[in-house]
Amino acid sequence: MEIRLINENDIDRKIIELYNQLSKTTEINREDFKNFVKSLNEYHNIIVILENNNIIGCATYLIENKLIRNVSKVMHIEDVVIDCNSRGKKLGKLLIDNLKNKAKEMGCYKVILDCSEENSIFYEKCGFNKHGNQMSVYF
Amino acid sequence: MEIRLINENDIDRKIIELYNQLSKTTEINREDFKNFVKSLNEYHNIIVILENNNIIGCATYLIENKLIRNVSKVMHIEDVVIDCNSRGKKLGKLLIDNLKNKAKEMGCYKVILDCSEENSIFYEKCGFNKHGNQMSVYF
Repeated sequence: MEIRLINENDIDRKIIELYNQLSKTTEINREDFKNFVKSLNEYHNIIVILENNNIIGCATYLIENKLIRNVSKVMHIEDVVIDCNSRGKKLGKLLIDNLKNKAKEMGCYKVILDCSEENSIFYEKCGFNKHGNQMSVYF
Repeated sequence: MEIRLINENDIDRKIIELYNQLSKTTEINREDFKNFVKSLNEYHNIIVILENNNIIGCATYLIENKLIRNVSKVMHIEDVVIDCNSRGKKLGKLLIDNLKNKAKEMGCYKVILDCSEENSIFYEKCGFNKHGNQMSVYF
């Protein structure tokens, strides 16, 4: 098993199948995937877990520079997904702990994410507390 | 009254005093402020409302490119604040409507933000719905 940042060849390692377990991502083509991965950087990236050369887990992070708290940094975590055949092995916690460590290294004062009521129990086990409501508007 | 993006000279237009109404931002110096503003771009910026050459409202947005939904975009709204002497004039709604329009122009499929239970009533008036829990961990 390996944890690393996403790369341009991961489209061949079942990452799209994995994302389809989170939200429909069906029609992404090879060029769009490569361009997306090329656009990533130290402030916005995706970490992946590999097993047998397939991606079985991933999570996105964004680092936001803020004026408040004297030009501080916050990590946002998005789109956490573990393959349905690999759940119950604490891989989600492995991803979240990895991102919490990265946030500390980069000088973030907090990490935030949004989740369902059901998933909040998992994030509480990862050290998170409920802090407010997520609001959304869809176009 | 004017709405525009933040600029490097806004440190002289009471923006720090405004942010201090949201979270302690006391010690930011002129150079850190200028460097922060220089780092902003079309994917991460702050809109401000000015009256009599002072900033009386502001809100941050981040546009996140996502792999899900076939390389889609989401707008995150952060750090919305209206000066305590200018509340009740629908300036908050003006900022949020401005950002919703920008999100549509940039092709985002949704806008998300986190808020307290108390503030969720305001965001419901702006067209948002409760979608989940915000979770956070502080270092």
